[in-house]
Amino acid sequence: MKKAIFSTEISLLKTTIERLLRRKANANLTKIIRKTHPADIAMIMRGLNIENQKNLFKLSPTFAYKAAILEELDESLIQNLLSEENITNISKIFRHLGTNDQAMIIGMLPKETQDIILEKLEAEDLEDVEEIMSYADDSAGSVMTKETFMLNQSLTVKKAITELQSYPDNERVFYVYVVDNKEKLVGVISLRNLVTSKSTKKLREIMIRDIHAVTSDTDQEEVAKIVAQYNYLALPVVNKQNRFLGIVTIDDIVDIIRQEASEDFLQMAGVGKDREILLKSPVGNAQSRAPWIFASLIGGVCAAAIIGYFDSLLQEMIVLAAFIPVIIGVGGNIGTQSSTIVVRGIATGRVDVDNSFALIIKEIIVGVILGALYGALIGFCSELITGNTLPNLGLVIGLSIGASMTIATAVGASVPLLLKKLDFDPAISTGPFVTTAIDILGVALYFLIASQILI
Amino acid sequence: MKKAIFSTEISLLKTTIERLLRRKANANLTKIIRKTHPADIAMIMRGLNIENQKNLFKLSPTFAYKAAILEELDESLIQNLLSEENITNISKIFRHLGTNDQAMIIGMLPKETQDIILEKLEAEDLEDVEEIMSYADDSAGSVMTKETFMLNQSLTVKKAITELQSYPDNERVFYVYVVDNKEKLVGVISLRNLVTSKSTKKLREIMIRDIHAVTSDTDQEEVAKIVAQYNYLALPVVNKQNRFLGIVTIDDIVDIIRQEASEDFLQMAGVGKDREILLKSPVGNAQSRAPWIFASLIGGVCAAAIIGYFDSLLQEMIVLAAFIPVIIGVGGNIGTQSSTIVVRGIATGRVDVDNSFALIIKEIIVGVILGALYGALIGFCSELITGNTLPNLGLVIGLSIGASMTIATAVGASVPLLLKKLDFDPAISTGPFVTTAIDILGVALYFLIASQILI
Repeated sequence: MKKAIFSTEISLLKTTIERLLRRKANANLTKIIRKTHPADIAMIMRGLNIENQKNLFKLSPTFAYKAAILEELDESLIQNLLSEENITNISKIFRHLGTNDQAMIIGMLPKETQDIILEKLEAEDLEDVEEIMSYADDSAGSVMTKETFMLNQSLTVKKAITELQSYPDNERVFYVYVVDNKEKLVGVISLRNLVTSKSTKKLREIMIRDIHAVTSDTDQEEVAKIVAQYNYLALPVVNKQNRFLGIVTIDDIVDIIRQEASEDFLQMAGVGKDREILLKSPVGNAQSRAPWIFASLIGGVCAAAIIGYFDSLLQEMIVLAAFIPVIIGVGGNIGTQSSTIVVRGIATGRVDVDNSFALIIKEIIVGVILGALYGALIGFCSELITGNTLPNLGLVIGLSIGASMTIATAVGASVPLLLKKLDFDPAISTGPFVTTAIDILGVALYFLIASQILI
Repeated sequence: MKKAIFSTEISLLKTTIERLLRRKANANLTKIIRKTHPADIAMIMRGLNIENQKNLFKLSPTFAYKAAILEELDESLIQNLLSEENITNISKIFRHLGTNDQAMIIGMLPKETQDIILEKLEAEDLEDVEEIMSYADDSAGSVMTKETFMLNQSLTVKKAITELQSYPDNERVFYVYVVDNKEKLVGVISLRNLVTSKSTKKLREIMIRDIHAVTSDTDQEEVAKIVAQYNYLALPVVNKQNRFLGIVTIDDIVDIIRQEASEDFLQMAGVGKDREILLKSPVGNAQSRAPWIFASLIGGVCAAAIIGYFDSLLQEMIVLAAFIPVIIGVGGNIGTQSSTIVVRGIATGRVDVDNSFALIIKEIIVGVILGALYGALIGFCSELITGNTLPNLGLVIGLSIGASMTIATAVGASVPLLLKKLDFDPAISTGPFVTTAIDILGVALYFLIASQILI
């Protein structure tokens, strides 16, 4: 195990590596890489250009080290690095990867390379890799590891410990999964209990029978929720017939939770769900973001048409134009607050989608409270702000701010709940969608109220 | 271990429990609680009113069960539940809690109750609890557990296994932490390696020496990053003199990662960082959200003043008012995209704050690309949209959209980076702040451009 480093230290290391790369000081680089944890090299690679990424990868001392780098890297970087390696080397790197990483990386390669590499895998690995590849993306089957310690329930504790000693070196064996003769999962034993039990006992006598497992088609987000809810370290995966297939380990769950949170953040802002957006070129980046900016553009055009419709009113009372930004601005911001609270509540399981009526009402009440407060404030001050003495202007502004904020909380809270009910991701672009809807509704309400009161 | 349930099943269980609570069918409720995992009862409690929360808590069968519920609950709920329990019962519940949960819960209670409970703790626990309470909130010391398996390096493997057998029942012992005579951390051994090593060997001969530890004052977010980066299952905590204090376990890390993500979500939307906002009353909720809505109100008032300043221009060319929403709307949305990408990048360690110049430039390029594209589009169509034939109107609209979007990406990317450099949380209200800044800048640019070109 390499001594790990972090944050400021990683920044320092990055500067050093960049300097050595510029100088092409390969001997020094090799020395540094040897002393550095592969996960740190992977993190530093993300900030380098493709050529330097390839250089670092080439200088990595062993196939095992290269495998450890790949385990931590993003898909687009892995594709770049492997595109120049020959098949023999890739196969050698693969020997140091778990079968789930093997399956993930093979899935990224072009079809012809896939076939050649699959051919070169050991027979046992091949079966596992093909099995994992057969499960849908983001399912429990696709993220599970097959490298688990599984024993028959009729073995004795003594025999089990002997088995453990002959099991390939694996720091991460903490549980023994116990199966019957048909490989159905029937129980689990912690290593601690195994070690402290009488050596003549059968596994079936000491195992915990009442265990929680998921089927291979369970969504990874559901798996993460279960692991977080019950503080498990690993969750067994079975098929429909309860045959034991593998486990999802908590270190993979940590990655899944971080990924899902990142995706939700990006989705909410309408940036797509590609966590690798930071690695994209400005053009690729613009492409991901264009659709939702276009949607808000359409919203803006609708608002323009509405304002155009009230042309003559505006001509008479030009001061109305000045308050357009504040009315849609506060609406947009409070609406985003509502949708953020609801989206995050759904993601963490704190919002019950089927009983969400009370939540929407609560959000509307918040809109009414803050709308009344700030509507009154700006309404009373409107004369002060513009120096305009139009009678009832304050009333119009105040009512419009109140109405815009109330509608905004209703829209902001309802949209993600509705998306979830329709089985869409509730985070999808709620940000741009809610602000755009408020732009249109806020402007329409404002001019309607103005035309009723002022004419 | 209880068979765990989830999602749809939890929703079903909740409905049943609510029905039984209405009917006051206490015998049935007790039966159901007995069959349910305490973590599920805790989750269901969040959706109940205070009285029903207390009822469920009272009906919980054992002190151990009550302790397990408290471990999973939010602070405000714990305070409610314990406010009615007498000190004797609280002490009995406490015996089933780990010292870090004891410390956390004692910290929530009123000062006089704290003292009485501390008095009733066992001497050994008391020392640990007082130690944990002495560390700053959100530091490694405050979230670590003291219940670890620590042995001296000069023990033999055989003796270590005997020690393990006499160690209080704990499913979660996976590593042996090895210390010297001064209790300084010198190594670690996985249970698997302990079991498979020769029984006469000394621990110092088989331990891994090169281990990673954090000091007790390390921020919990940093701890989470390290655990995620290197796939650790637990991270040892030491004092400045390298004395072993305890460990932060990965199941606590999972909670920390989820909490930090929730806080970032809420902070970005300007809702404060209180993850319990869903449990708050509408008034409490409004209070948390009011300051940032007020900030956007001030922004709106500034925009109103700017528009007021261009009164005569607007009087002449009333059509300009129609495009205010689209110009600030697309700016606000693309700016939010930029700040979201940067905030999340900082949180996941993908953005290097000290080398962020290239990132800001990249965001500005995205702003220029999309600004030119959509500026040209709306510019060309502006006549179509309003039916107005003012010469050069399209040019003004197009340029303004382009300028607003470019400025928006620059502001959106820079604000979180600047906050981070100033040692603030980069997520703090970037949402409202960025949209408000765009409101003001967008309107100002628009009318400046219009006054230059149209007059």
